Amino acid sequence: MKWISEESILIVGLGLLGGSYARALKRLGFHVAAIDIDADSIAFAQENDIIDEGYTTVEPAAVSAADVVIFGLYPTVFKQWIESYQQHFKPGAMITDVTGVKSCVVYDIQAILRDDVEFIAAHPMAGKETFGVQNSDERMFRDANYIVVPTEKNTPEAIEWCRSLGMILGFNHIAVLSPEEHDQMIGFVSQLTHVIAVSLMGCSDNRDLVNYTGDSFRDLTRIARINDKMWSELFMMNREQLLAQMDRFMEVFGSFRNMLAAGDVEGMRAAMRLSTERRAWFDK
Amino acid sequence: MKWISEESILIVGLGLLGGSYARALKRLGFHVAAIDIDADSIAFAQENDIIDEGYTTVEPAAVSAADVVIFGLYPTVFKQWIESYQQHFKPGAMITDVTGVKSCVVYDIQAILRDDVEFIAAHPMAGKETFGVQNSDERMFRDANYIVVPTEKNTPEAIEWCRSLGMILGFNHIAVLSPEEHDQMIGFVSQLTHVIAVSLMGCSDNRDLVNYTGDSFRDLTRIARINDKMWSELFMMNREQLLAQMDRFMEVFGSFRNMLAAGDVEGMRAAMRLSTERRAWFDK
Repeated sequence: MKWISEESILIVGLGLLGGSYARALKRLGFHVAAIDIDADSIAFAQENDIIDEGYTTVEPAAVSAADVVIFGLYPTVFKQWIESYQQHFKPGAMITDVTGVKSCVVYDIQAILRDDVEFIAAHPMAGKETFGVQNSDERMFRDANYIVVPTEKNTPEAIEWCRSLGMILGFNHIAVLSPEEHDQMIGFVSQLTHVIAVSLMGCSDNRDLVNYTGDSFRDLTRIARINDKMWSELFMMNREQLLAQMDRFMEVFGSFRNMLAAGDVEGMRAAMRLSTERRAWFDK
Repeated sequence: MKWISEESILIVGLGLLGGSYARALKRLGFHVAAIDIDADSIAFAQENDIIDEGYTTVEPAAVSAADVVIFGLYPTVFKQWIESYQQHFKPGAMITDVTGVKSCVVYDIQAILRDDVEFIAAHPMAGKETFGVQNSDERMFRDANYIVVPTEKNTPEAIEWCRSLGMILGFNHIAVLSPEEHDQMIGFVSQLTHVIAVSLMGCSDNRDLVNYTGDSFRDLTRIARINDKMWSELFMMNREQLLAQMDRFMEVFGSFRNMLAAGDVEGMRAAMRLSTERRAWFDK
């Protein structure tokens, strides 16, 4: 499948990410339709020229007109949608998603999906603390990573197509991981960090801290503003991986605690030198 | 004591903070001298017009010429300096500092200090992951908090003077806390967050993560690049407070872990709603 700008794209779930995809793809000349149950989201997107057509129900003609369908739904809703409406897909359509967990989504959907369409999973590692198409902004892709998450069922063509989708959306770097590798990675760099931020805010109800704090606390808690429905669902769908990452973190944190309690300055300094060295890998 | 720009200021320890103080105060018209054992730092500051005079040893004439002496030294070195050189202070001089821990510094120094000079402690809550006068930049004060940390020994005049120092340096907000309140606060918002960042980097040696990660991990580990000598000293000097904050964090984090393990979605969502609500207090 080539990228031909006459092709028609349907985005199902027009939130922060779906809206940002729509902005980027429409700017590139694609015909972009969207379905979202929220009438305000569709109205906003139409008024602001983010999409070409919008629907608040699953319009069979809109689904069957699409060469590409991009899902920006919660994981459980995504599966239900496929079960209910996949008969409307155009034969040969390419399906992809933005879901933040993979193992417990990708295999299930590939198992129930029609043979004449292909689902290639992807995870755009971009986000903000705000929600909805109203806050969508394709510029958040510029410094971000895009991960293609194929299984053995996927064709090399679909993997290449999905990589090129990440490229045209403007992502900084494209990677390919298996669902299991993805979920382990995401348990560490994303889910664990969100649990830490939420826990930090759980430690104190002192509003006056805002008058004393430096940037460290602000940085570590930025992601404590969190969509509780979406993230609790993502955590539950990656429970074993996240628990393993949390336990590993508690082990390392607890070992630092013991060094401090014992006055082991050399041990603490060694941990700090290691963290300094490793953090340099992540400089942009 | 009024702020008279004919007054002469001496900065002892010309690092990131001392250098930023120097830039701001010289721009405001004060005569700024500096002492630092590092010849490169003094040379850089002179070449770049950050100071008016510089010394790499403790020049008695420079100390006794100063109406204000600002210490940017490590806590232990600071105490030793006062013991060794306080005989050179001008009678009536005002002494302040930028030290990141207070209880175990302020009382000791006030106890040994000459009666005809006054030490009023302060903590500018600003910093960067870089070190030295070469990276100094007074603009880092603009969005930052400045904390005056008086004891019962301090005069109301010195407290007011120190508040006004924070103001003329360009800090966004000036607060006053006791040494004990300061150390408890700093154990939470600064020291605990640094231990978390260091521990996160201790969890994985996978360099490839840089190709997958989003901003969350970068944000939570920015401060993992850390001056191991300075921070281990600060941790040791605030050990009981930091241990208490670490234990409190482990308790809250552990409770979230148990909710996840038990599949308690409602409990996790409640924790997330609380963190979202509280984090809004910290929006700039």
